[in-house]
Amino acid sequence: MERVTVEKSVLKENDRIAEEIRGELEKRGILCYNIIASPGAGKTSLLEQTLERLAGGPLQVTVLTGDIQTERDARRLARFGFPARQIVTGGTCHLAASMVQRALDEIPLDGLHVLFIENVGNLVCPAAYDLGEQAKIVMLSVTEGDDKPLKYPSIFSRARLLVLHKMDLLPYTPFDVEAAKADARRVNPVIEIVETSVVGPPGMDGWLQWLEARVAERT
Amino acid sequence: MERVTVEKSVLKENDRIAEEIRGELEKRGILCYNIIASPGAGKTSLLEQTLERLAGGPLQVTVLTGDIQTERDARRLARFGFPARQIVTGGTCHLAASMVQRALDEIPLDGLHVLFIENVGNLVCPAAYDLGEQAKIVMLSVTEGDDKPLKYPSIFSRARLLVLHKMDLLPYTPFDVEAAKADARRVNPVIEIVETSVVGPPGMDGWLQWLEARVAERT
Repeated sequence: MERVTVEKSVLKENDRIAEEIRGELEKRGILCYNIIASPGAGKTSLLEQTLERLAGGPLQVTVLTGDIQTERDARRLARFGFPARQIVTGGTCHLAASMVQRALDEIPLDGLHVLFIENVGNLVCPAAYDLGEQAKIVMLSVTEGDDKPLKYPSIFSRARLLVLHKMDLLPYTPFDVEAAKADARRVNPVIEIVETSVVGPPGMDGWLQWLEARVAERT
Repeated sequence: MERVTVEKSVLKENDRIAEEIRGELEKRGILCYNIIASPGAGKTSLLEQTLERLAGGPLQVTVLTGDIQTERDARRLARFGFPARQIVTGGTCHLAASMVQRALDEIPLDGLHVLFIENVGNLVCPAAYDLGEQAKIVMLSVTEGDDKPLKYPSIFSRARLLVLHKMDLLPYTPFDVEAAKADARRVNPVIEIVETSVVGPPGMDGWLQWLEARVAERT
């Protein structure tokens, strides 16, 4: 009983900070997406190509990338001219709103359109922690198997968008795209879905169009 | 502070139960492996083929398989004539020793050689929970990227064996096998490594030989 009570109060404090972050970002017209997926689903490579495609364009983007150890991802992402900042959680299996708040104190928010938060690679724990985002995005790579929406319903039910990633590997792996989509919609009837690959068709267009439509709605 | 204290006391109680389980299994000469990997790394399919290969042979094997939701994996595993039992954690992101202890009360242990515990798909939280196993086995599929040993050092440092899985997908994915092995050995100099695939070379032989060598040591 004691453990449950303590966990609830941690989550309540997290939600309070998340609301502060959301208020601040909305006041500034900044879209914020919390990207959640398994380790190795392709979060960093999707963001790499996203930044590469957006470089030189009108959209200003910043990435906060969470990891338990290492600053590798921020280094990978910093090559494209947009700010990228690593949050090393030091053992914690998810980002928390307080970590995001500290990071936001140190990055410029003026003129920013989109803030991506790349969560720790974990399909479970991050789902419970509001980071002040406008929406959660869940990524599922086809090599992980089509049974994941029903096995990890918490994140699929809370995400606005499902990114079905590594579609180029579909010929080499048993993955029923229609079954995965149907199961995702079973746990979340309004979830939106895009299919992506960083190395071949269907490429990144569906994802970038989704993102640009969100920015257009906002302005 | 309060949260840390409570977490420590939960882990201490977990370790006490884990020691009870380990004592009971060792008394009976049963090997127990706690298999930890990301969602979709191939834990269930590796176990499926393992059971298929061992069916009709002298080894008696049982699988406890953990999931947050659904009983799918136990159904998949039950087809091979060995006992398979699902532990549904109902939201918890890892198995705990108490869950294993309850499950062990309900399965026959007489004549058993190997107990596999397939943990919840999560490369982070399960590393901290001793389930009474003789050893942890970490699985990494090549589609997840070769940076995982340094990004998730906790599980790689605690595992006896690294199973590099889905090796058949190596031609289609950027994964440096030697770099991944070197990084795994950097966090764990004595880790053993086998390479596997359930659909092509190198197949399952290396893994099954490793397992049979452990059983031979025991008897």
